Amino acid sequence: MSNEAALIAALRALAPHPAARGLADDAAVLEFGGEALVLTHDMMVEGVHWLPGQDPADVAYKLVAVNLSDLAAKGAEPLGVLLGYTLGPDDARFVAGLSEALAEFDVPLLGGDTVSAPVGSARAIGLTALGRATCQPVPSRGGAQVGDGVWVTGPLGGAMLGFEVLRDGASGIDTSAFRRPRPLLAQGRALAPLVSAMMDVSDGLLLDASRMALASGVMIALDGSAVPLAPGLPEARRHDALTWGDDYQLLFTAAPHFAPDHPATTRVGTVAARGPHPVLLDGSAPVGALGFQHGAL
Amino acid sequence: MSNEAALIAALRALAPHPAARGLADDAAVLEFGGEALVLTHDMMVEGVHWLPGQDPADVAYKLVAVNLSDLAAKGAEPLGVLLGYTLGPDDARFVAGLSEALAEFDVPLLGGDTVSAPVGSARAIGLTALGRATCQPVPSRGGAQVGDGVWVTGPLGGAMLGFEVLRDGASGIDTSAFRRPRPLLAQGRALAPLVSAMMDVSDGLLLDASRMALASGVMIALDGSAVPLAPGLPEARRHDALTWGDDYQLLFTAAPHFAPDHPATTRVGTVAARGPHPVLLDGSAPVGALGFQHGAL
Repeated sequence: MSNEAALIAALRALAPHPAARGLADDAAVLEFGGEALVLTHDMMVEGVHWLPGQDPADVAYKLVAVNLSDLAAKGAEPLGVLLGYTLGPDDARFVAGLSEALAEFDVPLLGGDTVSAPVGSARAIGLTALGRATCQPVPSRGGAQVGDGVWVTGPLGGAMLGFEVLRDGASGIDTSAFRRPRPLLAQGRALAPLVSAMMDVSDGLLLDASRMALASGVMIALDGSAVPLAPGLPEARRHDALTWGDDYQLLFTAAPHFAPDHPATTRVGTVAARGPHPVLLDGSAPVGALGFQHGAL
Repeated sequence: MSNEAALIAALRALAPHPAARGLADDAAVLEFGGEALVLTHDMMVEGVHWLPGQDPADVAYKLVAVNLSDLAAKGAEPLGVLLGYTLGPDDARFVAGLSEALAEFDVPLLGGDTVSAPVGSARAIGLTALGRATCQPVPSRGGAQVGDGVWVTGPLGGAMLGFEVLRDGASGIDTSAFRRPRPLLAQGRALAPLVSAMMDVSDGLLLDASRMALASGVMIALDGSAVPLAPGLPEARRHDALTWGDDYQLLFTAAPHFAPDHPATTRVGTVAARGPHPVLLDGSAPVGALGFQHGAL
């Protein structure tokens, strides 16, 4: 077990409250005042989650987007955010991007903290997003039923492509899928009453589907060729697209008769009874890493 | 204006929602489901907020305590916390301290995120704490009335003394005031219905009192000699104790007839009409830094 896996197991023991959902969901769901509050906190670190030299406005935008994506995956309507910010060389650009994202998704800044880091340290920033559940029960990763269809709301691989272009300094290709992912808030709300399980694809379809399968006590059988690829991504990169995250599409399961409202929503598999592997890809256990292993609690 | 002051001014423009309280309180107060939710987020950075080499269990304990202190200052009852954690060399000790603090203050972990930082970087950790208001209106920094008494709940300077002992490697002196501050949750709840304004003393009495005075549109006249000093602190360090933070006592104002329940609660001044300075110390504007300027929003 990695250090990080051991840590998360230890943290889980501190989280017996039902609102924590065993630290195995996109967000916590806390009953409060007769409603359900949906809560998430994601951090980003320079050189790990963003490229040194990236526009701080894009970093701010993405920090907001990835947290709101967790709310989207629970069908929640955002109420506000709290920011944990480490001062940097261009705070004004960070605020500009934060302002854009908050305006675009109509979410107020409610509070937070700013700190300094020692010179030369990679900077860390965090955001807590709060939302109001719009549908009860609030979708979890744990509700997939044998026989359900498995769906994604749109193409994968766009963030990977954008990252590679930015990293390599290429030009002429749109990198916004990596820099400015869009949380699917309206789609999440519309889907929430219709799904049996839902989460966002943040760490790679194969990894996230395996998490959903484990949480639901089922197996998810994916049809790799059915997964829609981002425009411009060659067929040879299909497997990479299935194991790269950061696209923030929604992954959900729904009863067999489910028919999507959105043309981009695509069926990519079927829920089957639990087997020796949480995920099958085209009938076999996937080979290699399933995705980006990080520590969302 | 410092970069940080400029940043906070810019962030304030993104926080027009009344729940944000103009980013000028210990916590946000959000009406939700007919109740009031109290929300705070504080970060700590290695080498800035804790000494490299300090026991990670103490760091975890303090991270919980300083956030719960913000809830205490609003009279709120803690509901849970979300953790933003950067992996380090001794995660098990961090979890041990986190576990102690959460058990002691009876607060569940609800979620969060763990990340890695590049080797050699100072680590940053953040915590979001949520509470339920126990009294309406929830005390703010902005309610002090001319003629009110100004009070602190106990002695100052203990954290400063503990920090110096730890920094200098001395022994035989209790450093727990710095390592393991105690959020005054029960006192905050008891005081909330009785105060006109309340906050915690996190950054130095003079600085925090000046913030309260500015938020209330008044002047606070402090009697320096009335401020209780931590045991072991020599009289010559009195001024240092007034400008050092980290003690997490509560600072509050109350009507002239207020009589405290707790023997340690001490009257240290009077609220006066707004003047040329937000705070007077023994009748004059204080000389030098008022406290530790950092960026709690």
